[in-house]
Amino acid sequence: MLQVEDRVANRLPQAIQALQRYCRQPGISSQGVGIPETIDLIGQMVIEAGGQVRVLNDLGGNPVIYAEFEPGPEGSADKTLLFYNHYDVQPPEPLEEWNYPPFGAEIHEGKLFARGASDNKADLVARLQAISILQEEGLPCRIKFLIEGEEEIGSPSLPLYLEKYASLFQADACVWEWAQKNAEEKLEMVAGAKGLCYLELTSETADIDIHSAYAPVADNAAWRLTQALATLKTADHRIVVEGFYDEVEHPSESLKDIARNNPYDTAAASSLYGLKGKMIAADAARAALLFEPTMSICGIESGYTGVGVKTVIPRRAKAKLDCRLVPRQDPEDIARKIRRHLDKMGFADIHVELLSASHPFRSDMNHPVIGIVNATAAAVYGEGRYALMPNYPGTGPMHLFARYLGQQLPIVAIGSGWWDDRIHAPNESIRIKDFEEALGYMVRFIREFPRMDQRAES
Amino acid sequence: MLQVEDRVANRLPQAIQALQRYCRQPGISSQGVGIPETIDLIGQMVIEAGGQVRVLNDLGGNPVIYAEFEPGPEGSADKTLLFYNHYDVQPPEPLEEWNYPPFGAEIHEGKLFARGASDNKADLVARLQAISILQEEGLPCRIKFLIEGEEEIGSPSLPLYLEKYASLFQADACVWEWAQKNAEEKLEMVAGAKGLCYLELTSETADIDIHSAYAPVADNAAWRLTQALATLKTADHRIVVEGFYDEVEHPSESLKDIARNNPYDTAAASSLYGLKGKMIAADAARAALLFEPTMSICGIESGYTGVGVKTVIPRRAKAKLDCRLVPRQDPEDIARKIRRHLDKMGFADIHVELLSASHPFRSDMNHPVIGIVNATAAAVYGEGRYALMPNYPGTGPMHLFARYLGQQLPIVAIGSGWWDDRIHAPNESIRIKDFEEALGYMVRFIREFPRMDQRAES
Repeated sequence: MLQVEDRVANRLPQAIQALQRYCRQPGISSQGVGIPETIDLIGQMVIEAGGQVRVLNDLGGNPVIYAEFEPGPEGSADKTLLFYNHYDVQPPEPLEEWNYPPFGAEIHEGKLFARGASDNKADLVARLQAISILQEEGLPCRIKFLIEGEEEIGSPSLPLYLEKYASLFQADACVWEWAQKNAEEKLEMVAGAKGLCYLELTSETADIDIHSAYAPVADNAAWRLTQALATLKTADHRIVVEGFYDEVEHPSESLKDIARNNPYDTAAASSLYGLKGKMIAADAARAALLFEPTMSICGIESGYTGVGVKTVIPRRAKAKLDCRLVPRQDPEDIARKIRRHLDKMGFADIHVELLSASHPFRSDMNHPVIGIVNATAAAVYGEGRYALMPNYPGTGPMHLFARYLGQQLPIVAIGSGWWDDRIHAPNESIRIKDFEEALGYMVRFIREFPRMDQRAES
Repeated sequence: MLQVEDRVANRLPQAIQALQRYCRQPGISSQGVGIPETIDLIGQMVIEAGGQVRVLNDLGGNPVIYAEFEPGPEGSADKTLLFYNHYDVQPPEPLEEWNYPPFGAEIHEGKLFARGASDNKADLVARLQAISILQEEGLPCRIKFLIEGEEEIGSPSLPLYLEKYASLFQADACVWEWAQKNAEEKLEMVAGAKGLCYLELTSETADIDIHSAYAPVADNAAWRLTQALATLKTADHRIVVEGFYDEVEHPSESLKDIARNNPYDTAAASSLYGLKGKMIAADAARAALLFEPTMSICGIESGYTGVGVKTVIPRRAKAKLDCRLVPRQDPEDIARKIRRHLDKMGFADIHVELLSASHPFRSDMNHPVIGIVNATAAAVYGEGRYALMPNYPGTGPMHLFARYLGQQLPIVAIGSGWWDDRIHAPNESIRIKDFEEALGYMVRFIREFPRMDQRAES
């Protein structure tokens, strides 16, 4: 049999074609676009890799895909590895800012461009292709997949499926959807995620829009909402909602040590994003991304926003507000605190709706699978070319896996992303070379995984 | 010859058809829609009423229409009445909120529905039809029209045309575009208007939209703009820009007397608009509409505003800000004060653009034409069924007429509007009975106008 490197290299053209096929299929959860077609396609992909598929759809929401691969004759029947991926993507808008069609999967200068290419289609394809390669020698353990279709809208149905099908998804460790290399080509992996409290705030001051001459007698929904939002946070980013920081724990010394090695590069990020403001200090940024909650306005709209002048008092204004939460913060508690704050500040008229809620999560950083992730990463990427952090600055439903599959389940995000993949933004892409490396890494990691207990004992 | 009442009644069907024809022709200045076609149509309408047209288009912007009607054999050749109208309308958006097509001019239950029907097409048609009726006996004076096409965007080109063609437009008094009846069917006329300072504020914090997980390291354009706007005004409507109120004069005792008779009805307005907030006291509202400057957000937009959840930090945010000004306030001075305020408050990064500027104006309320307006209104509408106020709470370019045609030129707004005409909003309409009354009033006013000097001497 060929060496791993050669088998991966031989497989690459076929793997890229599989990725293109998958990227050309939109599946947009927030807009309800292309969900059944995406599920059908994934079913074909699993069967082609030698697995079996079960579509779980009895609990509402977008269906959850369960896939299973049997261990080979020499594999460990009592070791189970669970992969988590999501098949939904963010909306592609604004369409006019894309250089290539968002569902065209065109390859230009070593990158494949598509909405969802990096978040999170390349990783699913790399994992299935790695399994396909390992089928030649027989899989070393049982492998399961949970592939959901509501990650980009906060995974509202996932807990129902995890609760009902907890035994189906039982595993010894879970590999999460995605990880990325930074500007210095260092792979950043995480063993946790922040939580999310995503609110829609609405002000409604009249039944009709009003000529702005009547400003002395008519409240203005845009002013109400703007004034209300401005009370939530100071101009220098301190959230002033009473009790917002109450549950936030000071990180332990060992977590602080890991944070100091957080390879996040503020200068590179500033250049990537084209930031116009003052750059945050590097140490502060590294700690904040891991340990501090945030509050962002993701969108706001009211009144006339077309070209030129229209003199009107808007009757309604809406804003979307996104809070990223750290361990022990609870999204529903945060929503209540924001409601109370608005009431106290005189904005009881502002309607607050919780659109999406997700709890924060962190793995035990002393679990043996953490050691396997580090060791196999060192073998593939090289010493110092990777870093495993206690949590991602973003959000995912890791906490639900812990809740329903066992609080001790370690969860580690491994993947093929790169910092300039522009996830959630126009011109999302995946670098072909990252995809190839992730394929090779996944082959090695799966092979090594069943030796977890030896490591734990050593 | 028939009595005025009968001649007006006989003319009505033809006048309504003329209004429908005019309302079916869009002419949207802020979107550049239908301007030449609108001008052609007005040319036909003037010629049909026995006048002559000259389209002034040598100074840029949308052309200004000059129309002239000679006095009859028994008319006063040395008395000139100038009418001001505008042929442009506000954009019809949001289209989905219209019950009838905005350029269909459909008549339902005594109302003609169209964008611009009330603001300000019915008045132009009523004036031309009144002239047409009076042509049977010969016009009592010289009549001129200035019909511009940029009123809804702040009349940027009008001063150029007024300056160059000042002698063409010379007159003894000017009748302004529009007036309206209130909820108690009392006709409200004005002899002045507030000024306008219309700004666009833009915040730009990055070159691309950013995944909101990176909130600790990336400024948010929506937050910047929201925070900046919130510093301009308190939640209870006091504008806190330094110097904003400096030029505002306390009204004289005689103006305060007129304000006490301002028939503005706060309860009716609250019901019309469906206001949700606390109603302002009636006396305060009447005074504020005449004498107080305002600041309105007419629109704001940033980031994702579609359905559901998108977790993104917007790179750009825009707001439209409309300040209505009272006599002695200067729109460019106000724009500078807002710029200085933002700089002082730490928002030097917010870009401020002056999109539209208009000065405030008030006529001398002791001029004899004011007496003729009141007397003929009493004859047509009845004593106590009309009120002539020193200024409108809205804006128009009256100040430009005073500046170029003479500071003593009295300007009085007379017209056929009604308070529930929904000008600038969806479902704008004109009541047919108001249109008919305005036609009759205009016939009487034009007949009486040349006796202005006798009144002045009496």
